[in-house]
Parts: sequence; C-alpha cells; structure tokens
Amino acid sequence: MTHRIYFCGSIRAGRQDAELYQILIKKLQKYGKVLTEHIGLNEPWNAPHLSGFTLGQEDLAKDKCIFKTDTDWLASADVVVAECTQPSLGVGFELGFAWKLNKPTLCLYRPLNGTGTAGLSAMITGAASDSWTITHYNEPDELDQAFEQLFQKLELTKNSNSQC
Amino acid sequence: MTHRIYFCGSIRAGRQDAELYQILIKKLQKYGKVLTEHIGLNEPWNAPHLSGFTLGQEDLAKDKCIFKTDTDWLASADVVVAECTQPSLGVGFELGFAWKLNKPTLCLYRPLNGTGTAGLSAMITGAASDSWTITHYNEPDELDQAFEQLFQKLELTKNSNSQC
Ligand SMILES: [Ca+2]
Repeated sequence: MTHRIYFCGSIRAGRQDAELYQILIKKLQKYGKVLTEHIGLNEPWNAPHLSGFTLGQEDLAKDKCIFKTDTDWLASADVVVAECTQPSLGVGFELGFAWKLNKPTLCLYRPLNGTGTAGLSAMITGAASDSWTITHYNEPDELDQAFEQLFQKLELTKNSNSQC
Repeated sequence: MTHRIYFCGSIRAGRQDAELYQILIKKLQKYGKVLTEHIGLNEPWNAPHLSGFTLGQEDLAKDKCIFKTDTDWLASADVVVAECTQPSLGVGFELGFAWKLNKPTLCLYRPLNGTGTAGLSAMITGAASDSWTITHYNEPDELDQAFEQLFQKLELTKNSNSQC
C-alpha cells in the first residue's frame, strides 16, 4: 500500500537543516508519496508547482497559493512527519492543523542541535498520544526503525478500518 | 463588553521578546481578559496554574497539562493575538489550531528584528483574510490603533451575530 506523506520542515525560519530534510524525504519515499518533496530542494520557494509566480519569497499571491496547496495536501495526507528541531512558525502551524484533523503524526527532534532553544514546545510534547509520537534522534539512520514502525502501524489501522 | 483574548508568544524557542510580550499583554488587558497573561512573566513555565508540578520544563505530565489548558483556553477565546517575530513551534501550533477554529486572529511582526529569518512564514501571511490580519510594526505604541480597530470590529461582529 502506498501512503500519502506530508513532511514538515523549516523554510523561512532557517534552512540550516535543508540537507537533513532531503535525507529524511528520501527515506520516507520508500513508503509512499511525499507530497512536500520540495522542502528538500535548495530553493523550495521556487518549486515547480510555484512556477507561475515570480522567483523569491516576497509575493502575497504566491504565499496564498502556498497556503492553499499546503493545507489541501495536509488535509489529504495519511500521515504527517515533522522535523521539529529548527523552531518554525510554519511547521508549528501545520502541526496545529494536523492535530485538529486527527492525522497520525510523528515529530522528530535532535536534542544535541545547538540552536540554543530550551527543548521542544509543550504544544508538541504535551500532545503525545497513540497517534502523536515524538522521537528523539541524532543521526538520520537512527530513524529507520521509527519509520518502519510508523508505517506498519498505519497499515494495521487502515486494514482494521476497512474491515469494519 | 469584555473579550476573552488568547495571546501567543515564544516560550522554549527563545525569550528574547519576553518584555515586549508583557507590554502587549498590558495593552490588551484594556479590552478584556488575557487568558495567557503568564506569557509575560519571567518564568511562564512556573506560572500559578502550573504550581501543582515541579519547577522547570522537563516534566511530561506538566507539558500535557500545559497543552490541555492552552487548547481549552484557545477554544474558548473570542480573539487570538500572536507576536510572531521569534519563530516558535508553539506559536505556530496555536495559530494552526486557531485557523481551524475560525478564530479572529491578529498576527504581529517586527520586520527589523535581527533574527536572521527570511520573513514571516507563508502559512501565516498566506492565510490572510477578513478575520486573519497581519500587522507589521517596530515599537509597541504603533499598535494602539491596530488593537482599537481589532476590538471595534469584534464588537460589531458580536452585535450583528446577536441580532440574527
Ligand atoms: Ca514555544
């Protein structure tokens, strides 16, 4: 079964982790379609689906298109995976939205990240439940098992739903 | 008429703007009850409503209480005011949640803030509508008019709703 995966990573709040996003997206593509594959590009704001707009990030009409595309993708996703280490309003917004939609969500966090923050927001950690998981890691390869478990669980849920 | 106001500001993502939050909260208290008054305290994580927990920010049960209290307050609020300059997952989460609840929302942003970010997230600017406003400013006193307009509009909406 192929899943629709919404991946969240920081864009305007800082691109320090862009290469990491690309690695994680490649790993996730083993399990399905990553709707937000452009988050791993060098210039996500000039992604193919935004080619009807001027280059860059200063155009309100473009921002409205990004907002519409992203919220539609999020609403259609089977699962949300968010790299949460770089504090970002956009990632937070997507997670608040995902939570209201009851989307199965995996939040990833690198405790040894040197951003100088005081840990992951209580709005992320405090939301923990069966379908809202927080995984700490240092290197991408440590996530292989977490991804495997996430999608196994998703398969089980889908199968049990379809048997009702 | 007194309004229930949910104020959002960064906590774990950085307290650089804590004094500013306090000034904005005082201004907002002219118009009603600021449910999240503790965001302006020196140690919001040790606010009175969290006194049943150990001090600090390392306790999952405390984070779950913060999450529950904040989402309940947000659901009960008439209006949301967010200082968005310091990128924060928590503020983003609250805004995504507020957007799904159709809460009238005012997002505040200081373009000359020196955080090194590439501007406000497209998930915030691209959500702009009659009830989702973004206001740029540099000094708190520049916001007096924006606050006055926000609450005047809220009164009008409330009155027209009650006449239906
Ligand atoms: Ca925060």
